[in-house]
Amino acid sequence: MQDGKRFPLNAWYAAAWGHEIRRELAARKVCGKDMVLYRRGDGVVAALEDACWHRLVPLSLGKLVGDDVMCGYHGIRFDAAGRCTFMPAQKTINPSACVRAFPAVERHRMVWVWPGDPALADPAKVPDFHWNDGDEWVGEGGTYYDLKCDYRLIIDNLMDLTHETYVHAGSIGHDAITDTPFETTHTDRMATVTRWMIGIEPPPFWARQLGKPGIVDRWQIIRFEAPGIVVGDVGVAPAGTGAAQGDRSQGVNGAFLAALTPATETTCHYHWNFVRTFRKGDHQLTRNIQVAHFGDGKGVYDEDVVFLQAQQEAIDRNPRQPFYNLNIDAGALWARKLIDQMIATETGRVAFPSAAG
Amino acid sequence: MQDGKRFPLNAWYAAAWGHEIRRELAARKVCGKDMVLYRRGDGVVAALEDACWHRLVPLSLGKLVGDDVMCGYHGIRFDAAGRCTFMPAQKTINPSACVRAFPAVERHRMVWVWPGDPALADPAKVPDFHWNDGDEWVGEGGTYYDLKCDYRLIIDNLMDLTHETYVHAGSIGHDAITDTPFETTHTDRMATVTRWMIGIEPPPFWARQLGKPGIVDRWQIIRFEAPGIVVGDVGVAPAGTGAAQGDRSQGVNGAFLAALTPATETTCHYHWNFVRTFRKGDHQLTRNIQVAHFGDGKGVYDEDVVFLQAQQEAIDRNPRQPFYNLNIDAGALWARKLIDQMIATETGRVAFPSAAG
Amino acid sequence: MQDGKRFPLNAWYAAAWGHEIRRELAARKVCGKDMVLYRRGDGVVAALEDACWHRLVPLSLGKLVGDDVMCGYHGIRFDAAGRCTFMPAQKTINPSACVRAFPAVERHRMVWVWPGDPALADPAKVPDFHWNDGDEWVGEGGTYYDLKCDYRLIIDNLMDLTHETYVHAGSIGHDAITDTPFETTHTDRMATVTRWMIGIEPPPFWARQLGKPGIVDRWQIIRFEAPGIVVGDVGVAPAGTGAAQGDRSQGVNGAFLAALTPATETTCHYHWNFVRTFRKGDHQLTRNIQVAHFGDGKGVYDEDVVFLQAQQEAIDRNPRQPFYNLNIDAGALWARKLIDQMIATETGRVAFPSAAG
Repeated sequence: MQDGKRFPLNAWYAAAWGHEIRRELAARKVCGKDMVLYRRGDGVVAALEDACWHRLVPLSLGKLVGDDVMCGYHGIRFDAAGRCTFMPAQKTINPSACVRAFPAVERHRMVWVWPGDPALADPAKVPDFHWNDGDEWVGEGGTYYDLKCDYRLIIDNLMDLTHETYVHAGSIGHDAITDTPFETTHTDRMATVTRWMIGIEPPPFWARQLGKPGIVDRWQIIRFEAPGIVVGDVGVAPAGTGAAQGDRSQGVNGAFLAALTPATETTCHYHWNFVRTFRKGDHQLTRNIQVAHFGDGKGVYDEDVVFLQAQQEAIDRNPRQPFYNLNIDAGALWARKLIDQMIATETGRVAFPSAAG
Repeated sequence: MQDGKRFPLNAWYAAAWGHEIRRELAARKVCGKDMVLYRRGDGVVAALEDACWHRLVPLSLGKLVGDDVMCGYHGIRFDAAGRCTFMPAQKTINPSACVRAFPAVERHRMVWVWPGDPALADPAKVPDFHWNDGDEWVGEGGTYYDLKCDYRLIIDNLMDLTHETYVHAGSIGHDAITDTPFETTHTDRMATVTRWMIGIEPPPFWARQLGKPGIVDRWQIIRFEAPGIVVGDVGVAPAGTGAAQGDRSQGVNGAFLAALTPATETTCHYHWNFVRTFRKGDHQLTRNIQVAHFGDGKGVYDEDVVFLQAQQEAIDRNPRQPFYNLNIDAGALWARKLIDQMIATETGRVAFPSAAG
Repeated sequence: MQDGKRFPLNAWYAAAWGHEIRRELAARKVCGKDMVLYRRGDGVVAALEDACWHRLVPLSLGKLVGDDVMCGYHGIRFDAAGRCTFMPAQKTINPSACVRAFPAVERHRMVWVWPGDPALADPAKVPDFHWNDGDEWVGEGGTYYDLKCDYRLIIDNLMDLTHETYVHAGSIGHDAITDTPFETTHTDRMATVTRWMIGIEPPPFWARQLGKPGIVDRWQIIRFEAPGIVVGDVGVAPAGTGAAQGDRSQGVNGAFLAALTPATETTCHYHWNFVRTFRKGDHQLTRNIQVAHFGDGKGVYDEDVVFLQAQQEAIDRNPRQPFYNLNIDAGALWARKLIDQMIATETGRVAFPSAAG
């Protein structure tokens, strides 16, 4: 059943890549909230409600004046905290004039915003996305903005890689994924699916990366962090060289990174990257891997998008039809359970404010 | 008033031309049901619900494996009866896993499906559409898929050919149609409108087909078979050569065939053909007649489509406005009455299940 | 709050420019009413409901036969009073067969229609739009049809010209508009905003029109006539030549004319003109001024349209969010109050018919 709330508001969500936010106004919708993002003169990112206090005109149609946002319609200005600093044709500023400011943090090459109660926004709780940092891992990703599906459908997709066998048969799919058992573990914020495929033929993509003939041991260790982060530690090593026991030195290791952000109940932004620890200086490889994921509708993720959006359309046509589950859904079910727990906590807080106080 | 149910479910509806269904998956929406159609190895057509039991992904995005449909997302397979035959990564198949199978029959060059209660689906009740069969009649038709109107508006259109005088003034229209009285008869499943125009100038289309100068006797005998079939026996013969008395040997005789299938309450598929008994070997004539009906927006049916879709838009804007009727609507009113009787019978069955048992 | 009725029905609204209505059928939607307009043989404009009595097909798909409108589907005809004058295939015309006729008047180069109670339609109450008449003023305007915003957002826009400073910074905007106080006056049908900017640098547009160097006195006298007319008397004169005291002889004077007509609650038609009393024979200037307002998305009004439609989208997303007001909104607030009074009068009339009698 696809009823009920679909996302918590009290959470950090990726709103943009850091390099996308400059000294100009950028509109983003996160969890149903229209936001305008920009970088202040000191480099800090600010996020305001994208609707002027006066008459609701999107502030993102205006411009930046110093560190203030000026509405393009009548020139009203708001500072990075959302306080009105100028009103046209009047000296006294209405003291109640303001727009909502959203907590924003820049970390791991992403801008994170908190659409819920600002008092609860703890920067220490920004999800772990360190693979994007420093030079241990290399890769260039991208974003699907306003994808027409519930963000949780993408979580389902990434937490169960058996779909690779069918959707991505020509690149990373392999019958071994379907045939190999996996383990699921979880904490109160994370769920992990671990699958080791021992002594298999590598699929085309991984055979090319490894560059050595012969069978391999392949791993997929997928970790979900509620509500919207999925990181997959993936790779292959020549069979029997100890990868499953901890020695990956003979193999090649990558990680897919997904930061999923609800725009509305049925649309989302899919920030993705694929990073690696091998051939890090090979820029052509970086570019090739990027295109292999997102390439004029022919990349691996483009293949997923066809299914994800068709699935959402089917859900919209049949809103009361239940989802049935298979064994392969164990990881996704834990992910959804952790999301539901966040929503329940948040809704409880709203429902019983005295208890929350 | 355009309220209430608009189509019965317990009926055979044309879902496709036979040649459109091959050894691959084809999606069709019939009476609000998403279906996937395909031809089994033995040539028999199967129709399943186009939504995987697991997570609703349209099965039509998958592929055929033998006579089973494999979901393109996770590889789950269903046989032509809708039973699950394979689940990824598990040996035991959930015994409740299935998708709905719809009764399907191929007859008269069309594939017919039954969207209602399968127990009531009697192949003997497939509508009479024999003009499509054999070599007595010749013609090549087509289909307007997802026309943006209630299928009953097309029945209104075909059951009252006075509209030809106005909509098709340049081809088959003629003041005589409006000026000539007609007779309406009916049974519990069929309604027939008969109009004989004696001693008139033939309209351009028929003058060309007859190829003889002078006035003609023209006939239009339109037969509706509930809920969605209209067949029009039409033609002209030189005036006074006995056509009205049964001898059409001096004339030319055609038949327009319409199989109308609701997709939703306000969209439908219009399968049409125009067949004839004269100059049957003249393939260029066959092609010309096809183009005259459906030709880059300029055919006779294209002229109708403009009115049909505009009428539906007007109904949507004014849902409570009544339809007023003219004498010319006698045939269409009978057609709608027969449809309503089918709906009432079906609804009664649902409303009083013990009585139905 | 954007609730409640948004426009009165008992009012004259501009439906078209006079030259647009010829001896053929033209569709217009006014206050939610679909109308078909045409010019009778004697030159008088008629307006009928654009939906055939029979089956709702838009009459505008038909054609004019003499002074009657013939439905294009079945040939039913209606005269300019909406009475049915012909039914196909029957001699007796159903006496109740008719379509609604709307009062229509042609004046000031516009066609005005009255979507409400015809008994109240007094041609003497057509709004004053005389600037369009005769040869005292010269100009060529145009129409934005089906603009995607509530017509009142355009009234807000025109009644507060401080927006020129921000939206039209490159042409007619000037900080002086924002910095100069203004006066607001009103009657029971009109509201007027008067702003005199004494001794300012002229903005680029007006400097070009005046053609004399030096500072100017600039005026903006904006008059609203409920429910949809705004006329702005605007111009500049060399500073200190007595314009504010009534002698504009050294200056240049123009007037912007706006006739705003609701199509639906959230769409409207914006008939506009900009007329002037200077260089009246300069046709190139007439054309240049027209393009400066409406030019491939780059004119002054095109700049407004971006904000107006974005504002409507924001209102649609946040229907319960209040509008806050600034001092600059004084004129717009009076305009909305006068509209609301018309609606209240009209609703009262409907609610207490005995009192109205």
